[in-house]
Amino acid sequence: MSPEKRAALRDFFREQLLDDIIPFWLRHGLDREHGGFLHHLDRDGRVYGTDKGVWIQARAVWMLSKLYNTVERNEDWLDAARAGYEFLLRHCFDADGRMFFAVTREGRPLRKRRYLFSEAFTAIACSEYARASGDANALAKAHDVYHGMVHAYRTPGILAPKTDPATRPMQSHAMPMILIATTQELRISSSDPLYDDVIDQSLDAILHSFVHPDIPALLENVGPRGERLDTPAGRLVNPGHAIESAWFLMHEGRHRGDQELITRACDILDWSLELGWDYEYGGLFSFVDVEGLPCEQLEWDMKLWWPHTEALYALLLALHLTGDERYEDWYDRMHDYTFSHFPDSGRGEWFGYLHRDGSVANTMKGGLWKGPFHIPRALWLMWRLLDEKP
Amino acid sequence: MSPEKRAALRDFFREQLLDDIIPFWLRHGLDREHGGFLHHLDRDGRVYGTDKGVWIQARAVWMLSKLYNTVERNEDWLDAARAGYEFLLRHCFDADGRMFFAVTREGRPLRKRRYLFSEAFTAIACSEYARASGDANALAKAHDVYHGMVHAYRTPGILAPKTDPATRPMQSHAMPMILIATTQELRISSSDPLYDDVIDQSLDAILHSFVHPDIPALLENVGPRGERLDTPAGRLVNPGHAIESAWFLMHEGRHRGDQELITRACDILDWSLELGWDYEYGGLFSFVDVEGLPCEQLEWDMKLWWPHTEALYALLLALHLTGDERYEDWYDRMHDYTFSHFPDSGRGEWFGYLHRDGSVANTMKGGLWKGPFHIPRALWLMWRLLDEKP
Repeated sequence: MSPEKRAALRDFFREQLLDDIIPFWLRHGLDREHGGFLHHLDRDGRVYGTDKGVWIQARAVWMLSKLYNTVERNEDWLDAARAGYEFLLRHCFDADGRMFFAVTREGRPLRKRRYLFSEAFTAIACSEYARASGDANALAKAHDVYHGMVHAYRTPGILAPKTDPATRPMQSHAMPMILIATTQELRISSSDPLYDDVIDQSLDAILHSFVHPDIPALLENVGPRGERLDTPAGRLVNPGHAIESAWFLMHEGRHRGDQELITRACDILDWSLELGWDYEYGGLFSFVDVEGLPCEQLEWDMKLWWPHTEALYALLLALHLTGDERYEDWYDRMHDYTFSHFPDSGRGEWFGYLHRDGSVANTMKGGLWKGPFHIPRALWLMWRLLDEKP
Repeated sequence: MSPEKRAALRDFFREQLLDDIIPFWLRHGLDREHGGFLHHLDRDGRVYGTDKGVWIQARAVWMLSKLYNTVERNEDWLDAARAGYEFLLRHCFDADGRMFFAVTREGRPLRKRRYLFSEAFTAIACSEYARASGDANALAKAHDVYHGMVHAYRTPGILAPKTDPATRPMQSHAMPMILIATTQELRISSSDPLYDDVIDQSLDAILHSFVHPDIPALLENVGPRGERLDTPAGRLVNPGHAIESAWFLMHEGRHRGDQELITRACDILDWSLELGWDYEYGGLFSFVDVEGLPCEQLEWDMKLWWPHTEALYALLLALHLTGDERYEDWYDRMHDYTFSHFPDSGRGEWFGYLHRDGSVANTMKGGLWKGPFHIPRALWLMWRLLDEKP
C-alpha cells in the first residue's frame, strides 16, 4: 500500500470514529436517567425501544474504555463507560451469578439465555474499564466473570443446549471464537494460568474440529470430536464469524510469533471470502451452505454491517502481516462496497441491514445486535494498524 | 363474481391442489423407510435435511386425511396419513405427555420448545385421521392432546415464557388464534363442553385484548389484560397471522350465525391488508410496526408464501359472506401477485421466500416451517367455497 493511501485511510478512519460514530452514540444513546445505554435507535437517533441488551451495554463500556485508554483521556468517554459499568453490576447479574440477556430501561430482568456472551462481553468491559478507571474491583469482577464463564462452558449440564445432546451432540464455533477474543483482552491487564489453557484449547478446536482438511471452510457447527454433520446446521458457514475468528487467530499468531498460525488464519480468511462474497451484487452473505444447498436462515443473503467491518480489518491485517498484494485488492473491493452502501451520510452512523441487492432493508441505527461496537472497533483497529510501521 | 370466473377459479384451484401440490409431496416427501414425512426439500424435491419437524408431520396427516374425507377415497392419501399418524404417536411425545418440536429421521428427540403448536397440530391430525380411518384410538388421542394443551395454556408456570413474566407479563395473539382453529376442527368429529368455553374465551381475547378501539390493527402482543406495550413487540403486527385469524373468526361467525362477528372479522382483514400490503412492490409484508418504527425482525419486508394463501382464502370468504365488491378487487390483486410470484412452474410447488421486490430469496420448497399445509389448505378451502351457492 502506498504511503499516501495509508495516510489517507488512517485519517479517514480516525474521522469516521471520532467525528461520526462515537458522537452519534454519545448524543443519542446515553441514558442519563437510569444509567447505561439506550440502543434501539432509529435513523435519526430517535429511541424506538428502551429495553437494554446486556451485550450492548458491555460492548459499549469496553469500547469507550478502550478509546480512553488508547486515544485520549476524554472524560466524557470515561463517564459514559462508568455509567454502563455501574448499570451492568447493579442490574445485569442473576442471583446464580450468571447474566441476563436483556433488562428493562430501569434494569429489571427480561430475558436470560443459554449462552455465555453476556458474560464474555462483560468480562472484557470490566477489564478495560479497570484500566481506564484504576478501579481494582472492576479487575476482580472481570476475573470472576471470566472464571464463571469458562466453568459454565466446561461443565456439562450447566447450560442445556438447544438440541438434545443425547441425540445429536454438537459444538458451535462461536464459543472457542469468543473465548479467544475474550482471553486476548483480559491478558492485557492481568495474568492467569487459565488464559493460555483456554486459548490453546480454543485454537485446537478451531483448527482441528471446525476446519477439516478436505473442505476449504470454517464450519459453524460440528460434532463433539469435530465430526461433520450432514444437516443444514452442519453445512452452515457464517462468513462474518469465520472472518472475525481469522483476525483473532492472526492476533494470536502475532502475539506468539507463530507464522504458521498466521498462515492458517489467512487460509480461513481466503476460504470465507470465496464462499461468502456475492459475485453478483457485491458484499458478504450472512450465511452460506458449504455444499450450495438452501440455508434455513431467511436472512442468509442479506448484507449486514458487521461481517463487512470484520472483513475490512482482517484484510488490512493480513496485508500487514503477509505483504501479499491480493489482500490489498480484496481490501479495496470490501472498502468500496462497505463505504458506498452502509454509511448514512449526513445523518451519522451506518445502516445495519441491506437486502442482497444492496438496498436498505431497515433504517435502524441500533437494535438488540447493533450498538457502538463492530464499527468503532474496526475503525479503531485499522487506524492503529496503519500507525504501525508497514 | 361472474359465474365464468367462479368456474374457472374453481377448476384452477382443484388442478393446482390435485395435480401439482399434493403429488409433489407424495413423490418427494414420503419417508418409506422410517415413516412420516421428509420435508426439507430443495427446488426439485431433493432432500437437503432429514430431521423431522413435528408441526409438519401433524399438518400433513391432517391435510391428507381431510382430502380423503372430503375429496375422494384415495388410498394413497390414507396410507400416507397413517404413516404420519403412526410416526407422531411412536416418536413425537415426550415422557411428560408434551410433544417435541423436532425429531431425527428415525424419530429420536432433537428439540422441545415452550410452545403448544406441536400439540395443536397433532390434535387436529388425530381428529381428522380418526374420521378417515375409523380408528377410535385416534379420536381418543385427539381428545387427550387437546385437553393437555388447554391445561398447559391455562395453568401458569407449566410453560415458562421467553420474557420474564414478573417484569413484563405478555400474551401473544398466536395462542387464542390457534385455539380457535384447533377447536373448530375437533368439533367436527366430537363434542365436548370445553369447546365452546375455549372458543368464547379466545374470541374475547382477540376482540377485546388484541384489538383496541383506537387503533385499526390486530396486535401480536399485549399485556395480560390487553394493555398496549410501547415496545417493538407491543407495536408488532403480523399481517399473515391477523388475516388467518380473520378467517377463523368468519368461520365462527358463520357457524354461530353471528353477523356481527363476521363484520368484526372483516374489519381485521381490512386493517391487516392496509397495514400489510406493500404499495410499492406488491405482496404482503411479514411484519410491520403499527407506528411505522423499525421492526426487529430482519425478514420484516420479505414476502412469504403463507400470508398470501391466507389472504386469498380470507378475501374469497369475505366476498362470499358480505357480497362487498371491494373484496373481489382485493382478491384479484392478491391472486395476481401470488400466482405470478410464488409458483415454480414446471418444477412443481411454490417458492416460499421472496425478497421485498418479489425476486426469489430461497429456492427451498419445504423446510421447518413450510410443508404440505398452507397452500393445499387454501386451495382446498377455496375450491370448496366456490362449490357453495354464491
